[in-house]
Amino acid sequence: MSEKALAYLKDNREELLAKLTEFLSIPSVSTDSANKQDVQAAADFIVTYLNDIGFENVEKQATAGHPLVYAEYNQAGPDAPTVLFYGHYDVQPADPINEWVSDPFKPEVRDGRLYGRGTSDDKGQVFMHLAVFEAYMKTEGKLPLNVKVCIEGEEEIGSENLYDILHDKKEQFKADFAVISDSGMAETNQPTILYGLKGFTGIEITVTGPDHDLHSGMYGGAIRNPIMALSQILASMKNEDEVITVDGFYDDVEPITDEERKLMEQAPGEDFVASTGAPATVSEKGYTAKEHTMGRPTFEVNGIYGGYQGEGTKTIIPSSAIAKITCRLVPGQDPEKIQDLLETHVNKVAPAGVTVNVKKEKLSSKAYKVEPNHPLITKAAESYTKAFGKETIYIRMGGSIPVVEWIEAIYDIPIVLLGFGTPEDRLHSPNESFPLDSFDKGMETLVYYWQMVNK
Amino acid sequence: MSEKALAYLKDNREELLAKLTEFLSIPSVSTDSANKQDVQAAADFIVTYLNDIGFENVEKQATAGHPLVYAEYNQAGPDAPTVLFYGHYDVQPADPINEWVSDPFKPEVRDGRLYGRGTSDDKGQVFMHLAVFEAYMKTEGKLPLNVKVCIEGEEEIGSENLYDILHDKKEQFKADFAVISDSGMAETNQPTILYGLKGFTGIEITVTGPDHDLHSGMYGGAIRNPIMALSQILASMKNEDEVITVDGFYDDVEPITDEERKLMEQAPGEDFVASTGAPATVSEKGYTAKEHTMGRPTFEVNGIYGGYQGEGTKTIIPSSAIAKITCRLVPGQDPEKIQDLLETHVNKVAPAGVTVNVKKEKLSSKAYKVEPNHPLITKAAESYTKAFGKETIYIRMGGSIPVVEWIEAIYDIPIVLLGFGTPEDRLHSPNESFPLDSFDKGMETLVYYWQMVNK
Repeated sequence: MSEKALAYLKDNREELLAKLTEFLSIPSVSTDSANKQDVQAAADFIVTYLNDIGFENVEKQATAGHPLVYAEYNQAGPDAPTVLFYGHYDVQPADPINEWVSDPFKPEVRDGRLYGRGTSDDKGQVFMHLAVFEAYMKTEGKLPLNVKVCIEGEEEIGSENLYDILHDKKEQFKADFAVISDSGMAETNQPTILYGLKGFTGIEITVTGPDHDLHSGMYGGAIRNPIMALSQILASMKNEDEVITVDGFYDDVEPITDEERKLMEQAPGEDFVASTGAPATVSEKGYTAKEHTMGRPTFEVNGIYGGYQGEGTKTIIPSSAIAKITCRLVPGQDPEKIQDLLETHVNKVAPAGVTVNVKKEKLSSKAYKVEPNHPLITKAAESYTKAFGKETIYIRMGGSIPVVEWIEAIYDIPIVLLGFGTPEDRLHSPNESFPLDSFDKGMETLVYYWQMVNK
Repeated sequence: MSEKALAYLKDNREELLAKLTEFLSIPSVSTDSANKQDVQAAADFIVTYLNDIGFENVEKQATAGHPLVYAEYNQAGPDAPTVLFYGHYDVQPADPINEWVSDPFKPEVRDGRLYGRGTSDDKGQVFMHLAVFEAYMKTEGKLPLNVKVCIEGEEEIGSENLYDILHDKKEQFKADFAVISDSGMAETNQPTILYGLKGFTGIEITVTGPDHDLHSGMYGGAIRNPIMALSQILASMKNEDEVITVDGFYDDVEPITDEERKLMEQAPGEDFVASTGAPATVSEKGYTAKEHTMGRPTFEVNGIYGGYQGEGTKTIIPSSAIAKITCRLVPGQDPEKIQDLLETHVNKVAPAGVTVNVKKEKLSSKAYKVEPNHPLITKAAESYTKAFGKETIYIRMGGSIPVVEWIEAIYDIPIVLLGFGTPEDRLHSPNESFPLDSFDKGMETLVYYWQMVNK
């Protein structure tokens, strides 16, 4: 059954790539209200595609924010399993825009890679699933299993409405297992099962001093500088050994076992210095960079701003300064407790003369771990290996997919992370890209997997 | 002789205010290259005005940046003293623009104050001088003394070319004393002699980590966060007691004498909390806010930026972070030595995993103090008192006017700071303004002073 579908994908490769390019050209940046209509257009693109393929009950479900696309395929019969396929069609902002070699929303192939925002995260991977469904329908007239499609438009802004939808529409979205392709492989062409993901939480700190910018000559020496106060607060939260110095932060962390340390050591790792251009690798004292990224919590300031940012100098004491912080959590840590600990710390160390406000990121998630010997996992490994011609490996990763935790919490079904990204994809950065070779082999993997799970 | 000039100013008040409004409407923002033509237009306005008044040798002197306006009046005779009048026609940027009640470049009178960028710093005060010269010429056909006019367009960007001009054209600009009106009074309608000003220097710190923004899930735990590194560096430079913790920073500081402490204590001070909206006043441990602002050095972060500043979250480790820092210096401190100390400190505390670059502000200045009993100073006090009807007081202030140090260094002549600003003027901030009453009394002061100095 899979041969015909595979042949279809090969024969129609140019047409599919053209269609993917059309999808990627829509700037569906969910965080920027200026792109609201583009986000709608990307949802419409999927609705049309799913209808064309032959899905039923295709719906663009309205939310308080951007719509979610839902669809069903029920013709595989009552004995066939039902998969809930999750993906997202929204993308990160493209800024800093001037660092892109080609337009982020005019995809371009260079050296076997397709460049453009969303090529890897996650429009490219969503499209691979749709193309494989199309291949099965066009060649066999049916899919090997029943499918429920759930493609949201708010992943990059914290999936603000998804939890409520999954919770409230539990009957509609119900399935036997879930598949998500929004992650990557340890190395290009190295099939990888992600058996652990980090959780996620965040806060925004606003330090306010005077109610307007002040002349530094007239007020310097009388008024606390909000940027300096914010710097002092931030510096008190992590030390130079990359140890987070917030009371209680590590209290509930499940330690990395010796066995896992070995697994992490063996896992192929990228050369962090070469791939990032940073002068050196740094990690939490007592842990290697691999161990820290895979199995230890992190604390990052994602953005900071305050005062004058233009050309030249402006001799002011600024009115306020703001820092955006997110943490990646490991099994054992509770995101809301972590937010409380961060807030308590900030309030404790805030100096006199300024007002400090901590805004908590609304949607957080716990970390995730899955049983590596589950048949749905081993079949995924088999499909990967068959398509990529290489033994599949098992790793934990530093990324966070809140939906994974929510599906587990609400549906209590196995979740399979079938990721095809590569370490060179530059997710969230300028010049995001995805290898065309992974596009082909990834679709081949999916063709095998759908057939294999209904056996 | 002064009565006619005073009457002229009174009779032509409306016309002069309209002309001032025209001058203020030119957005001569020197730091922004987009305003290059506006800066030229402001210079042209002054050239035309000086020619109309009857000045000779009026020149718009080109520089590597914005032009300087020079003019002479030599008809007061060889026995009359010659004053070098310095002012600047460039202004600070108007941002944050949305905090202005009225357009910064469409001056508007509200409650007896003229609102607009430059009303106080320094176009308004420059215009008062020009109007007084006009009044003398129109009524007496001559000025009470010889004048050399030097009005530059680069004060708000560090007077980048002024030092070289003053140095290279020493013969042309030579005078017996200098008068500068680019400062303020201790209180509205409180005539004030500034006998001390702070020096000024600055650095910009750039912390660079990876060569592009990184996904915080994939790289968090392996790569140093440049914002956190910058925060740690800044926090190491000043403690919560507002003590600058850079080795050697206070080494050459001339201590405040007990006598000066009394003078500072007696000087009228503004209620810093009321006028700034900050929750509390803070100052260097061991010094009051008054003492710190008037007589102790300061260290301010004027601006900071790095990473994501938009709506929502962006889970990145940013590629770089930048902080702009300026210091106000007191007598004894050498700006270049201070820059070296700051640079040494930054390099010493910079953590591994990032590259740190310190850019030194090109033009710095030493602090300034003048002899309060010099006849030119006591005559200024007398003129002030006559116009404002109140005893003149003597204070030191936290602001910096590099040109003061340069005139002293190059010409070695007495410098009189005839300032008319008020503490409510909001220099460098949104809603800058200047009282119309001070406009009238300030011009009256100048009418008296010019006559008094030629006696």
